[in-house]
Amino acid sequence: MTYSTYNINTPSPYLVLHKVDKIPNILSIGQSNPNSNDSVETDIKILTAHKCNGETLITELSTENSDPFLIPGSFLASKFGSLPKKDAIKIGNLTKDAVALLKKHMTSISVPVVISADSLDTETFTSLKEVVFKQSTLVVVSITKAQKLLNLSNNIKTVEDIFSVVNQFSNEASASNVLITNCKLTESNSFDVLFTSDNQDFTTFKAHVNVRDCNGMISTAITANLAHEFSLKEAIYGALEYVQSSVTVNNNGNTAPNFMYAIESPLKHMIADECFTAHEIVPIPKTLKAGPMVENFYAYLIQHPLVKPYWDTYIHHDFVRQIADGTLPLKKFQFFIEQDYSYLVDYGRVHCIAGAKSPDLEDMEKELVIVGRVREEMSQHEKRLKEEFGVKDDSYFKNIKRGPALNNYSRYFNQVAKRGNWEELVMALTPCMMGYGESAKAFKGKVTAPKGGMYSEWIDIYSCENYDNGMDIGMSLLNHVARTYPVDQIEKLIRIYGEVCDLETKFWDAALAYE
Amino acid sequence: MTYSTYNINTPSPYLVLHKVDKIPNILSIGQSNPNSNDSVETDIKILTAHKCNGETLITELSTENSDPFLIPGSFLASKFGSLPKKDAIKIGNLTKDAVALLKKHMTSISVPVVISADSLDTETFTSLKEVVFKQSTLVVVSITKAQKLLNLSNNIKTVEDIFSVVNQFSNEASASNVLITNCKLTESNSFDVLFTSDNQDFTTFKAHVNVRDCNGMISTAITANLAHEFSLKEAIYGALEYVQSSVTVNNNGNTAPNFMYAIESPLKHMIADECFTAHEIVPIPKTLKAGPMVENFYAYLIQHPLVKPYWDTYIHHDFVRQIADGTLPLKKFQFFIEQDYSYLVDYGRVHCIAGAKSPDLEDMEKELVIVGRVREEMSQHEKRLKEEFGVKDDSYFKNIKRGPALNNYSRYFNQVAKRGNWEELVMALTPCMMGYGESAKAFKGKVTAPKGGMYSEWIDIYSCENYDNGMDIGMSLLNHVARTYPVDQIEKLIRIYGEVCDLETKFWDAALAYE
Repeated sequence: MTYSTYNINTPSPYLVLHKVDKIPNILSIGQSNPNSNDSVETDIKILTAHKCNGETLITELSTENSDPFLIPGSFLASKFGSLPKKDAIKIGNLTKDAVALLKKHMTSISVPVVISADSLDTETFTSLKEVVFKQSTLVVVSITKAQKLLNLSNNIKTVEDIFSVVNQFSNEASASNVLITNCKLTESNSFDVLFTSDNQDFTTFKAHVNVRDCNGMISTAITANLAHEFSLKEAIYGALEYVQSSVTVNNNGNTAPNFMYAIESPLKHMIADECFTAHEIVPIPKTLKAGPMVENFYAYLIQHPLVKPYWDTYIHHDFVRQIADGTLPLKKFQFFIEQDYSYLVDYGRVHCIAGAKSPDLEDMEKELVIVGRVREEMSQHEKRLKEEFGVKDDSYFKNIKRGPALNNYSRYFNQVAKRGNWEELVMALTPCMMGYGESAKAFKGKVTAPKGGMYSEWIDIYSCENYDNGMDIGMSLLNHVARTYPVDQIEKLIRIYGEVCDLETKFWDAALAYE
Repeated sequence: MTYSTYNINTPSPYLVLHKVDKIPNILSIGQSNPNSNDSVETDIKILTAHKCNGETLITELSTENSDPFLIPGSFLASKFGSLPKKDAIKIGNLTKDAVALLKKHMTSISVPVVISADSLDTETFTSLKEVVFKQSTLVVVSITKAQKLLNLSNNIKTVEDIFSVVNQFSNEASASNVLITNCKLTESNSFDVLFTSDNQDFTTFKAHVNVRDCNGMISTAITANLAHEFSLKEAIYGALEYVQSSVTVNNNGNTAPNFMYAIESPLKHMIADECFTAHEIVPIPKTLKAGPMVENFYAYLIQHPLVKPYWDTYIHHDFVRQIADGTLPLKKFQFFIEQDYSYLVDYGRVHCIAGAKSPDLEDMEKELVIVGRVREEMSQHEKRLKEEFGVKDDSYFKNIKRGPALNNYSRYFNQVAKRGNWEELVMALTPCMMGYGESAKAFKGKVTAPKGGMYSEWIDIYSCENYDNGMDIGMSLLNHVARTYPVDQIEKLIRIYGEVCDLETKFWDAALAYE
């Protein structure tokens, strides 16, 4: 009788190298609730995403449709006793029985304890002060809840008013460190305040997305970071960015935060491994054989709704028009050249990675030729900055201040290079070449900037025949990608192209805006 | 009043790109049990690690110290009704009330359902057959449990006997697809068998680590992979490798499997991001300023217990001795050259990545010089294989069969290059250069292989003055790494050096063993 046999591959050696890493055990005390982000289920997800092993002490089972189901104190006590050694504890929703258990054991706990206080009623708050809050590493509470527990009216006008509430809460709760969240002076901007009583210090953290009702999640992420031995401020920073990202990098319209936003499918990596042998079980992905996308992917891209608005803005940019008609203020061009110079080392690195990920040796060599030209181009920029812009000191080049448009652009490229595959990198690298070409070509023969001058030369570089040939090569590479890439993933490639057009636009915007 | 303010960085753009990825919602029905890997807590960890959103329907709360606490049917029904839409369901420990609920709703469920049957008693098994098993996508059960449920004595002698049990279980349970685990013909080797009744097909999977009592975990990982739309066989393969790796890549002696083995700390990445601005909160890592490790890291390494056994075996290898005294059979040398040739493209890619990760432009250029020589070296190998070994056909080079020693070596390098930092890559690349040098130097002036011949030339390459200079540069690079790397992470660098020495040794072992 015939049957197939597949060998399971050995674990990834780089990961086995980390066998000696400590995985902290973290206990989450709170409610089980599938409809809430303030639940032990959510906590296990966040802890797992932070490379921590989550354990739970469920105080009650809650659901939308019925009364919560409280777990009796005897069971809680028994379970608490049976839990393995913990490296940190996060405290969420507590029942009366849970409070009693905590008060009994708190003084024998010597690991970091983070308490999310938003769900506490006044009675529980009072009950926890003397022993539990006092022993805690950090108490996290929203400002409105803090004011309620302190019986304060909402009379916030200045930062000092906020700090006063924070200070009062710390004193009243006997909590050494408190993080008060969702503080506002204007309707649109909120920030969080850390107060550490040992040095009476205040620190504010400004998040870009207003994440409400999330103190349970923030507390859990803080606990994980503390267990990994990050400092308190690092732990808080990381937790805020993590929760903010979970909400922003949402999953296809799902209302729940995406705690797994940075996690990659294990099986995807297993299939790509050098020592994977079960290739028979992997279906061959469907690719396009023919059609408009394959025959002219470039034309398809620049008309695609995910690209067109960004592409059009990019190639009809006023920055290029001002160069062509010679009206671009010199200092703006100088700024542009400096930012471009600063970018070139990143650009070199990205092409090294493109070389590493190239399908074959010839492609690798082409990439390395590009990298080789980077030093050349940097020399040209140095020359121009010295000759045309009067830069004298060589140390100038090391001290160029990188603007936000450059950092965002670099960041995007570096991440696609690091985390993406070769085709994604091709999509990220192509808009620059095609866009400069199209933009300059529009002014070929119509340049009114002085002939032989800097500006006129700049238009020439990107509109000459040599450059055209480069664009032709780029276009056929795009067609190759469209023909060979799994069809169901092509949309992601299109998105990348659009996003990079937007980054290019913003790079030129920054030059025009430079004062 | 003065206080510090920190801005929270925006989410990583590459991850925002994946905003449109679907995160499957998976329901795990089973027990809450902190002391078992067959629990909803474990399931949420596994699901999170598989980029799925886990929901739980807890049937009972269990603990070592007391009787389980059963959740009443009314609460189960209410909760089940309130859960959001699921993309897949995994079924574990069931109580009577849970069984009743399942039987009531099973026919209206149209998503993949995976059942882990090891915890079922005979009564529950019988109760689930008609409706629940019949509707399931896969039932997972160990062979001993299957035999028990079928009332079969343990009379396994051949593969056909095993397949017979599998087939019987599928029929008896009315389950279209079954995965029977932990099948054995000899004491040391176990394997798992998939039976799909539509085509009456058997498939076996051989894992390298015997993972017992883990069918709950395997079932959960399978469910996650199915929800991500992998095929059934891929889903099973992935689950087996995942569980095997979780057990192998353990965490510092902890008894629990390490479900987070492939997950990286979010905060680590946040701090390294180009647009991170809160540098003040990051403590400067402690580095060594002086001492033996810094003055001669190379000498320190080769004496270190994590390196010395592998290093000694490596540089006193019989492969090199047989080259020096001319006794190495020609076909073994040919095999070695072929494997080395096949390796060279990987080597080129790894140095591209080293270039990308280099601290500065000069280092990047040095790496690219190395890559440039790869094509040269490949030509030399081609020449040698043609002239000395009579290879005529150019297609020969594309068809060289890569042996396991080469694949393991490549795999290790590629992973350090991809996932590691520049210093880790330096540690991985150095043993090759130092080891070939030390090995060859030992025979300098003592070569008895014919002068001017292939073997004598090979020793010359690695023992000449030019090569010595290269080794000096390598040694000072090692000292630089020791001086600048965070002290508490140096041990991992040392481990890498040792592991690569072992891989080099095995590469030469494979050449000597070639028949």
